[in-house]
Amino acid sequence: MRFVRYGEIGAEKPGVLDGDGNIRDLSGQVADLAGDVLGALPDVDPAGLPLVEGSPRLGVPVAGVGKLIAIGLNYSDHAAEAGMAEPSEPIVFMKATSCLSGPNDPVELLRGSEKTDYEVELGVVIGRHAKYVSEADALKHVAGYCIVNDLSERHFQTERGGQWTKGKSCDTYGPVGPWLVTPDEVGDPQDLNLWCNVNGEVRQNGATSSMIFTVAHIVSYLSQMMSLQPGDIIATGTPPGVGMGMKPPSFLKVGDVMELGVERLGRQRQEIVSG
Amino acid sequence: MRFVRYGEIGAEKPGVLDGDGNIRDLSGQVADLAGDVLGALPDVDPAGLPLVEGSPRLGVPVAGVGKLIAIGLNYSDHAAEAGMAEPSEPIVFMKATSCLSGPNDPVELLRGSEKTDYEVELGVVIGRHAKYVSEADALKHVAGYCIVNDLSERHFQTERGGQWTKGKSCDTYGPVGPWLVTPDEVGDPQDLNLWCNVNGEVRQNGATSSMIFTVAHIVSYLSQMMSLQPGDIIATGTPPGVGMGMKPPSFLKVGDVMELGVERLGRQRQEIVSG
Repeated sequence: MRFVRYGEIGAEKPGVLDGDGNIRDLSGQVADLAGDVLGALPDVDPAGLPLVEGSPRLGVPVAGVGKLIAIGLNYSDHAAEAGMAEPSEPIVFMKATSCLSGPNDPVELLRGSEKTDYEVELGVVIGRHAKYVSEADALKHVAGYCIVNDLSERHFQTERGGQWTKGKSCDTYGPVGPWLVTPDEVGDPQDLNLWCNVNGEVRQNGATSSMIFTVAHIVSYLSQMMSLQPGDIIATGTPPGVGMGMKPPSFLKVGDVMELGVERLGRQRQEIVSG
Repeated sequence: MRFVRYGEIGAEKPGVLDGDGNIRDLSGQVADLAGDVLGALPDVDPAGLPLVEGSPRLGVPVAGVGKLIAIGLNYSDHAAEAGMAEPSEPIVFMKATSCLSGPNDPVELLRGSEKTDYEVELGVVIGRHAKYVSEADALKHVAGYCIVNDLSERHFQTERGGQWTKGKSCDTYGPVGPWLVTPDEVGDPQDLNLWCNVNGEVRQNGATSSMIFTVAHIVSYLSQMMSLQPGDIIATGTPPGVGMGMKPPSFLKVGDVMELGVERLGRQRQEIVSG
């Protein structure tokens, strides 16, 4: 099943895609795609639900996101291009939840930013509370998967004094979606291609099979140090090809268009606008 | 005014202290101390509100906390005891909001933790949306102040691979409260003593006058990189005296009792229990 939240910012309604890719209204079944609903997503036949007319805006396909956790340098080639050592255990940081944005919403360039960069990532949405869980049990706590663009202001991330959060939390720097796709439809999360284009030029083209730490490992690992709760989203790291790693480095500017995708999870498109 | 949220975990109600320090029920005036309410806190005479009998548990005095942002090494003497350089601009990191805990709730020692440490801090609660605000205007966006114990697992924070979030986000490692105190009652936020005892022994004893970066500077600074929203809490750093800085270092163990306070903001008391 592919779940969506559609409508204007702050007024999204839950929906589900039918076999033709049309949105069906799910608001008769659930109030929203949030909290405990994520641990028991409705198993309905979309064809029996009201068809949503037109092409509404899509929002983040999960509501009530308590934490937006991200894993750094989880693809060895990306660690190399960033000039950093391959980590011996997951590098964990947070993006402010106020950075969350719809999958196709414009990205507002932070005022004064000269080093804004894209990062296509596999996103993991928690469906059931997880604390001290084993790697073997970890995926039972996952509601589904989505695309995350872990946009980053590199100057703020690494050149303004300690800790990456500064460059990772800017408003609109966290597009998520278009869909929350259930695990049965995704299959093995370590067997997905992912890619990102800028202005039609291929920049990133990788596969989750190259992750240093698997989704199951990451969920188990995080749960040893904090509880994971329904609606939490984990961005699992980006493959090589970011602008920071180009020679010379190339960063995003107003008017640039990013298109990115993860196999079976759809695609996103964002234009950079002034903030 | 001193606002509180009282009652069992997950079922707290809003209240306000009267002149004798008794809790008066505020649930007839506001649904909760959250969101836009924080930008226009009710100006009522507590004596006219229903008296709350007994001594109920106190919760975090703010609901709907979207971000729990913390500033690192903001007292020069603490930077020295941590063996780190004094920062040239604020060090910013996030604590997961799932670590939030009432001011007197037990702290659950993370399983396997050998380096859990206390940090008394002045907490700042945002009342009005702040983005790109000047230092001169920054304090207009503050709803009030509270105590934060920025509990930290030092091994996870600094010895498990990059980024402090790992050791800062453990469940119950974020006691906040007892009160949300309005700015008129606090006066100058840079003129407050703060202290922390462990098992009756004075460990920290400092003053916010020693902060490297003031509250106004921090709010303005953060707002240049992300929007601050009503209910966001900023922990502004800790004075010297943490266990990590003792010779030899001394960390918390089951049965230890922390008592901590900030002038005009009340005091907290937590016992360490097994997690």
